[in-house]
Amino acid sequence: MPKGFFLTTEGCEGSGKTSIVSMLERYLSGLGYEVITSREPGGIAIAEQIRAVILDTHNTLMDGRTEALLYAAARRQHLVEKIIPALHAGKVVICDRFIDSSLAYQGHARGLGFEEVLSINRFAIDELFPDLTIYLDVDPEVGLKRIHSHEGREINRLDLEELSFHQKVREGYQLLAERFSERMVTIEANSEIEIVFERVQAAIHAFLEK
Amino acid sequence: MPKGFFLTTEGCEGSGKTSIVSMLERYLSGLGYEVITSREPGGIAIAEQIRAVILDTHNTLMDGRTEALLYAAARRQHLVEKIIPALHAGKVVICDRFIDSSLAYQGHARGLGFEEVLSINRFAIDELFPDLTIYLDVDPEVGLKRIHSHEGREINRLDLEELSFHQKVREGYQLLAERFSERMVTIEANSEIEIVFERVQAAIHAFLEK
Repeated sequence: MPKGFFLTTEGCEGSGKTSIVSMLERYLSGLGYEVITSREPGGIAIAEQIRAVILDTHNTLMDGRTEALLYAAARRQHLVEKIIPALHAGKVVICDRFIDSSLAYQGHARGLGFEEVLSINRFAIDELFPDLTIYLDVDPEVGLKRIHSHEGREINRLDLEELSFHQKVREGYQLLAERFSERMVTIEANSEIEIVFERVQAAIHAFLEK
Repeated sequence: MPKGFFLTTEGCEGSGKTSIVSMLERYLSGLGYEVITSREPGGIAIAEQIRAVILDTHNTLMDGRTEALLYAAARRQHLVEKIIPALHAGKVVICDRFIDSSLAYQGHARGLGFEEVLSINRFAIDELFPDLTIYLDVDPEVGLKRIHSHEGREINRLDLEELSFHQKVREGYQLLAERFSERMVTIEANSEIEIVFERVQAAIHAFLEK
């Protein structure tokens, strides 16, 4: 059995992450890898408890930095209990969203500061960056339309506010892809999912041949 | 009414912090300040919820870094909801333990790394360091004896293990006092509490005259 690695997928809403993750799982299993997929909090009891504090609708006074620290804490525990043991067992771990989501959403789009959010997340992951990050780069208008066509409704004023937020998120991801170019591959994701997946396969090949 | 400031007290178990905090509160009130005292999580609902996750005895798999991030998150929320509003209202805030406790206990004594624990706590406090930190420097043997004489029992094997841990904590505090000498005053605290408090008063005078 070939030795595993740590793969993460990133992107805005409607970028097709969920489909790509299950296509990747099938594809890598077909290449002989033992594959697990996860996403935070990943069924880890402590991480679920932390998420419950974040998502408690009574916690209206929750500060942005408190929230970022809680996300980093949940990430740490999911990493220690689930990702690291699977990597030690030689598996491929595909994690849907990881450190780059915090950097793009909280660091860049919410304005907490890129370097600041990076500093607490470096502490959380203790230098265990992914071996490969597939960033699905979608135009936010295309992404939002995809989501809304699922829900069968028109785009409204609130969605337009969302649009500018998602444009900030995308900008954040694009900055990350430059900064972390050694592990992060940008995949143009406005196309049909089959075409996007062909590009992902090419990126996986290039990674495996390194 | 004179303008307030942010004062923290630090020290090992048995250093006399609790007594000194209430003597300080009376003393500064007597000087005309409006004074509040607090200690984390300080009755802040979100911080209490975070503490409950840390202290849940079922959470035996809790990683040291997860715990440090949770402490930092609780600190942030207590700061935002309680300390900052009181400072804005011109009060003196006396907080029993703050950032230096995490640095001495988790960073130094538990070995998580001083700079790492500092980085997440800098994010948590967003540069709101205390104006003055009173570090009560007690010989751990003296401190532990004080605690045990309260409980009326002898020192046992477990306490001796504790002793070496508390010696590490003290070492951590002493390193902090050097590093943060512009805000941190070391008070020799092996003496009787009245004598210790005279030294604290002298430090307060020196601070107020600056």
